[in-house]
Amino acid sequence: MEFTVNDVRPTLEAVAARAGVSRATVSRVVNGGLNVRAAVQERVREAIAELGYVPNQAARTLVTRRTGAVAVVIAEPESRVFSDPFFAQQLRGISRALSAADTQLVLLYVEDREDYGRIGRFLGGGHVDGALMFSLHSDDPLPGIAAAADLPVVYGGRPGWEGEDSLGGDPLFVDTDNRAGARLAVRHLLDRGRHRIAHIAGPLDQTSAVDRLRGYRDELPADAPHDLVAEGDFTPAGGERAMTELLTRAPHLDAVFAASDLMATGALRTLQLHDRRVPDDVAVVGYDDLEPATWTHPPLTTVHQDVEEMGRMMATLLLTRIGAGTDDPPAPVITPPLLVIRESA
Amino acid sequence: MEFTVNDVRPTLEAVAARAGVSRATVSRVVNGGLNVRAAVQERVREAIAELGYVPNQAARTLVTRRTGAVAVVIAEPESRVFSDPFFAQQLRGISRALSAADTQLVLLYVEDREDYGRIGRFLGGGHVDGALMFSLHSDDPLPGIAAAADLPVVYGGRPGWEGEDSLGGDPLFVDTDNRAGARLAVRHLLDRGRHRIAHIAGPLDQTSAVDRLRGYRDELPADAPHDLVAEGDFTPAGGERAMTELLTRAPHLDAVFAASDLMATGALRTLQLHDRRVPDDVAVVGYDDLEPATWTHPPLTTVHQDVEEMGRMMATLLLTRIGAGTDDPPAPVITPPLLVIRESA
Repeated sequence: MEFTVNDVRPTLEAVAARAGVSRATVSRVVNGGLNVRAAVQERVREAIAELGYVPNQAARTLVTRRTGAVAVVIAEPESRVFSDPFFAQQLRGISRALSAADTQLVLLYVEDREDYGRIGRFLGGGHVDGALMFSLHSDDPLPGIAAAADLPVVYGGRPGWEGEDSLGGDPLFVDTDNRAGARLAVRHLLDRGRHRIAHIAGPLDQTSAVDRLRGYRDELPADAPHDLVAEGDFTPAGGERAMTELLTRAPHLDAVFAASDLMATGALRTLQLHDRRVPDDVAVVGYDDLEPATWTHPPLTTVHQDVEEMGRMMATLLLTRIGAGTDDPPAPVITPPLLVIRESA
Repeated sequence: MEFTVNDVRPTLEAVAARAGVSRATVSRVVNGGLNVRAAVQERVREAIAELGYVPNQAARTLVTRRTGAVAVVIAEPESRVFSDPFFAQQLRGISRALSAADTQLVLLYVEDREDYGRIGRFLGGGHVDGALMFSLHSDDPLPGIAAAADLPVVYGGRPGWEGEDSLGGDPLFVDTDNRAGARLAVRHLLDRGRHRIAHIAGPLDQTSAVDRLRGYRDELPADAPHDLVAEGDFTPAGGERAMTELLTRAPHLDAVFAASDLMATGALRTLQLHDRRVPDDVAVVGYDDLEPATWTHPPLTTVHQDVEEMGRMMATLLLTRIGAGTDDPPAPVITPPLLVIRESA
């Protein structure tokens, strides 16, 4: 008889023999220890450690329907995920909360639309107990995929996708009050005597961008120009393009509120290129208060949101939802924004 | 009788009924269609599409032992993974190769040593067909975890961990010739008339750092100082600390070769702070040729390695190893380095 590596991997039976208990007892200990005396649990755990037994998760999943893993799905390509500090910071909060609950973080990102089928198979395949999804766009198939897979989900950002009602239930989400945040930014510029205030919006198929645009419009006085809006894509390059467009349309604008710090850094570069002094000629306010806001010349006045804490809350909500967290009934969370004043406005 | 969402999910039986075939036939089609006539396969696939059936991957894994997913394990905390462009670029290459083979990329990173148990359970749990591992340190438990889980692995970087031999087999890996790359860098500095050449090494529990240090020592002439070495950690802050230490020990050094571009950016900042002109007073050479090398003032002379292509090769090797790629027998790959000359040296 030939031996392969598989043959020498310790089995449930080997653990049972070593601990002097039944196969079923070992199985119960592996799956949480319900109805097994502490002394017996201890003996089984010792046998598991001695033999280096690793329970087969696929088999275990069929029994417990719990994998101990959670997917984080970011509806953006790898290049965005790794260049936008928003995602890193959100992931930091998520990662800490999941680690504290001994739950494995499994990161998936969406390179292009062809990936959705494969991501759906993975999410529906019993590899994870739930998913955190963020940066969704209004026509995103992910909520439908999660519903089809019957997978508990918590969203980052207020949902606002097409056909939302047809998916049933009240989606759980964590968001900041983007509309109130935008009002703070515009109020600050008005208080500083600015009147021709432009807005660089985020992609308007995302609710955060829509809500910030609404807040900007809420706060503008009736006699101020209301058409100084250009759409960006939350990247520095998008901010540059939008700022160039706005300067062409309105050379005498005296302030700009960008819907993200990264777009504001692009706007700053474009203003410099067109010999506008910041804040003397044009005041600039960003949104997010991430690290880049402190690196720019001049540093950015911006609307602060605690992105890491929002990540932590998303993870905590999901753990509660899948029964791995506290007993508080989960509900959407909306955090208040805060204006941070630096030199740019 | 109560209906839950689970009850209305289409089952294998429902698909079989709709297609007018047996349960076993549906199962064969789901798992690759072996021994099923094309016309019947077509009928089953239509029924699957009509009903929106998602095969249960956990059950399927027990049958086919194939999940269609591959783990990428980076032995660094999230803060490193998301701030070092090396990882983003390696992931880009991996992501493209896996997508082309319709294989799901599942990213895991290691926040601290307590995570290893959980990562081991996930890797051993039948959720992935193989793993790509990079940034391993010499005492890293990951190779042992992969061996215990009997999981095919391809490593990024020449293996050099403790107890490597005991794991058996020849590990598959992709690497650049780090020793030759370091020699190119030092040769260039010598050719420019520099003599007191310092080295900022990477963490010496990683083979890439050890090999670059060896190449640096290979190339130094016998009459040049050989003790101008300080250890960094592949981050800008580590480069700053090492450069400060080197300037204290050897104020008259006239060149520095840093084992990564990120450490070189830190060195540049420290040199500026100490009023050393680059390259006039101190010439600087980096390693990697990633984006930051072109952003610095002055831009960095550096050793180029095609990190994205190395990622692609790792993924391709693994796909071959797990039988999802071409039939070429997989073997380690070592790519040649190249010197890119810019203003810093």
